[in-house]
Amino acid sequence: MAKVTVHISMSLDGYITDPEASIGTPLEGNDPGRLSDWQFDAKTETDAAIVDELFASTGAVVMGKRMFDVGFEPWGDPPPYGMPVFIVTHEERDPMPMKGGTTYNFVTDGIEAALDRARTAAGDKNVGIWGGANVIRQYLEAGLLDEMYIHVAPLLFGGGIPLFEGLNPGGIELRKTSSIETPRATHLRFDVMK
Amino acid sequence: MAKVTVHISMSLDGYITDPEASIGTPLEGNDPGRLSDWQFDAKTETDAAIVDELFASTGAVVMGKRMFDVGFEPWGDPPPYGMPVFIVTHEERDPMPMKGGTTYNFVTDGIEAALDRARTAAGDKNVGIWGGANVIRQYLEAGLLDEMYIHVAPLLFGGGIPLFEGLNPGGIELRKTSSIETPRATHLRFDVMK
Repeated sequence: MAKVTVHISMSLDGYITDPEASIGTPLEGNDPGRLSDWQFDAKTETDAAIVDELFASTGAVVMGKRMFDVGFEPWGDPPPYGMPVFIVTHEERDPMPMKGGTTYNFVTDGIEAALDRARTAAGDKNVGIWGGANVIRQYLEAGLLDEMYIHVAPLLFGGGIPLFEGLNPGGIELRKTSSIETPRATHLRFDVMK
Repeated sequence: MAKVTVHISMSLDGYITDPEASIGTPLEGNDPGRLSDWQFDAKTETDAAIVDELFASTGAVVMGKRMFDVGFEPWGDPPPYGMPVFIVTHEERDPMPMKGGTTYNFVTDGIEAALDRARTAAGDKNVGIWGGANVIRQYLEAGLLDEMYIHVAPLLFGGGIPLFEGLNPGGIELRKTSSIETPRATHLRFDVMK
């Protein structure tokens, strides 16, 4: 059975971007090399296997509009997804087919509709809720997540976009299913109990 | 060389107490059994070894006034410390010797003075900065910490006392030195680089 899975990197103090990214200069101010070191500059074989497994098991990605706006240019063409991406937004736009199998689709009727479309596109594979924080919290609160894969980086940012701030966890319970240690991340995997 | 070491349990979303503890009913509302499960109800041999090593290597504890006020009654007599405890406070009070080797000492001239007194009391052993959040942030920002031992519990509280909120990390860099996995905690140990 296909799962709905969060995948996100977080600093030890709970941020998914560094402080500069939150004050209006997302690209110039951002330092993706630190939170994402484990995926790029400091990638070990274990880190690589985690990313490979994530991409191999995921058939479609859902993301928020802000993440799309911030990421669109640096991701380039072909984008790193290689699969359909569904962007939760208020703005109607035609789908944007990119190179390498990525298509950006814009969904204006809410997170459940975006998930339905992503499930259909993903077939037997998982749907990845890969950010940003706001969309992840919405799916978590709505009880629509099966799994969270949180990569905790050994960093203190003191600011930025917080992953969990404002979360209303209701009765959400997590069950830790694995924890993998690499130099630049602690990869924590949880089932979200319903 | 003796170290200055933080030791604190934190939920995945960054809180060191559950939400009720932050709104004026610290004892009645608190559910220490969840964040501290790894130390009590769900303690494994590995968890026990971590606590034993911490107590064996620590010669004095520093804590904030709020943590003392909240903890004093439930800790009872003998308190669980078995060593001198230095409480950072504005209120002058005589030392309170308790059973089992714990003495509560009240230090009114700041965090550096409290640390100096704790170092002297600890001798060759470490000084433990064991909470609360405010005192930990002050020592971290002042560059007085050598090590942080953070026990991340697989819980989402959505509120409570945040460990790192408001931190000004300046140039603080962490180097992860170990990560130990048990069912109810991920025990992350960091050197604080200076």
